[in-house]
Amino acid sequence: MNIEMIRAAAKRLEGHARRTPLLNSPFIDEIAGRRVWVKPECLQHTGSFKFRGAWSAVSALEPDLRARGVIAYSSGNHAQGVALAAASHGTTAVIVMPADAPRMKIDNTRALGAEVVLYDRATEDRDAIGSALAQERGLTLIRPFDDPQVIAGQGTTGLEIAEQATEAGVTRADVVVCCGGGGFASGIGLALETEAPDMRLRIAEPEGFDDVTRSLVSGRIERNARLAGSLCDAIITPQPGDLTFPVLKRLSGPGLVVSDDEALHAVALAFSRLKVVAEPGGAVALAAALFRTDQIAGDDVIVTISGGNVDADVFRRALERFAD
Amino acid sequence: MNIEMIRAAAKRLEGHARRTPLLNSPFIDEIAGRRVWVKPECLQHTGSFKFRGAWSAVSALEPDLRARGVIAYSSGNHAQGVALAAASHGTTAVIVMPADAPRMKIDNTRALGAEVVLYDRATEDRDAIGSALAQERGLTLIRPFDDPQVIAGQGTTGLEIAEQATEAGVTRADVVVCCGGGGFASGIGLALETEAPDMRLRIAEPEGFDDVTRSLVSGRIERNARLAGSLCDAIITPQPGDLTFPVLKRLSGPGLVVSDDEALHAVALAFSRLKVVAEPGGAVALAAALFRTDQIAGDDVIVTISGGNVDADVFRRALERFAD
Repeated sequence: MNIEMIRAAAKRLEGHARRTPLLNSPFIDEIAGRRVWVKPECLQHTGSFKFRGAWSAVSALEPDLRARGVIAYSSGNHAQGVALAAASHGTTAVIVMPADAPRMKIDNTRALGAEVVLYDRATEDRDAIGSALAQERGLTLIRPFDDPQVIAGQGTTGLEIAEQATEAGVTRADVVVCCGGGGFASGIGLALETEAPDMRLRIAEPEGFDDVTRSLVSGRIERNARLAGSLCDAIITPQPGDLTFPVLKRLSGPGLVVSDDEALHAVALAFSRLKVVAEPGGAVALAAALFRTDQIAGDDVIVTISGGNVDADVFRRALERFAD
Repeated sequence: MNIEMIRAAAKRLEGHARRTPLLNSPFIDEIAGRRVWVKPECLQHTGSFKFRGAWSAVSALEPDLRARGVIAYSSGNHAQGVALAAASHGTTAVIVMPADAPRMKIDNTRALGAEVVLYDRATEDRDAIGSALAQERGLTLIRPFDDPQVIAGQGTTGLEIAEQATEAGVTRADVVVCCGGGGFASGIGLALETEAPDMRLRIAEPEGFDDVTRSLVSGRIERNARLAGSLCDAIITPQPGDLTFPVLKRLSGPGLVVSDDEALHAVALAFSRLKVVAEPGGAVALAAALFRTDQIAGDDVIVTISGGNVDADVFRRALERFAD
């Protein structure tokens, strides 16, 4: 992966992915004690940055291969990104999802044009089902983060951050990125390395699922003890990726870890002050900018909101507890 | 007012007002039965399009006059827009607000740098207080809609709609604008007249407060019977403006009227499908696109979301009733 791949992905995404704005609010600046710039990828197609990586990967396939279709395992943001990217390219997406996934997620993925294959978590093996389908039909697997073209697609967010921050007069800042498997963070880090060398990548994670933060400390890949039980489900993965971790190790400053409550508080502030809908996992970077101010350097901080696919009841809870 | 004034306002707003994106969602298209393009001015500074008009008016003042300060009467979106525009120009804004206005609105207006003058609705005369202050200190009154420079500022939204729709391949569409006093609608109408002549302005209003719709039918200014009692408080005014109505009469197709429930439903869909926070009054144009489909022509419709300054409890109610 390198900046040329990210620039090439940006060309392929032009006119297809949204150029999300860079938002700010004096009220948020006051809480954070510095200027906070927010890149709201919740406004991206399908409600998360995942669409960028999916479009990048699908558009980079050889036409013959692409015509046979793609496959992904996901019940979340990656599923929707791949579904829409494939449909827009006139090809098939097969999304393998657990049968007990929320009905709305299954319906949405279908509505975006994907063929959803359900499996029983208790009795069936997801990988076996997926591999059989892929082989039989010649489908290409689109991985959620450990894929160079997916990382390049996510990195286009970094190109935009560099441009938009420069327009706002900001060239030196910590750039805090919500981090699961690390595709978003490593892509942005690679873009900033060339385009905004005075900016420093930081990753943000939810408490109890801080595998990347711990991996950055130990210098090798560490795993999460648990894989469920956080409101920040959208950004939880077992461990950093084999492709993404070396990039993060090289480019990221220390990780920032926030609690579920702090993420919910950031969701409420994004509602009242920025007028965007953030999912809790998508709000961890904003929460870090607000509540870990002593671990951040400089007059400006830039944060991503990685997605906005939050259930209404979780959002209502955030407002009940933290709004006004 | 003419297109040259709008273009000049756009120059003054460059680098200060946000260029909001043009959003869409296949799920919303499906409900509406046509493609729906959404211009979310809730993402504008201070959470509504009002910042554009305020910036336009304050920046157009002679420097000497501007240095003496400006004054506005408003407890809502116009107050916040004028407060921030004045502070950013290094001058004073005096905002005259009723003492019983919600504490948060008073606090926000002050936090944006304005001097808030409170009056007692029962015993004091707002205009007398404002006029005395204006005269004593040489303040310039910034009217919420019946001011050519304010209308020109709101019209910059129309320039962006024309450009962004063209980029999306759309040149023919009804453009539905949330309408109170008509500053936003007339500004956009004037911009489209030149920049996108195949688009047709439509105005949208809440049921029971459809003064502009009725005025368009009768051909003269009609008043609302009531001035309170709608969730769509942000866009309620007694009657169309003396400057705005002739423009609307010339350029607008028939008005579209939606119920409070339909506006709330649109708020919930903007949450789940567009990931933006709309206030009920700001969602009436989207509601019209969704629920008045037989009164709209063509394959594409463009709607504004005029603002997102909604109380958390109203927003929670919208989600409880209409989300998922």
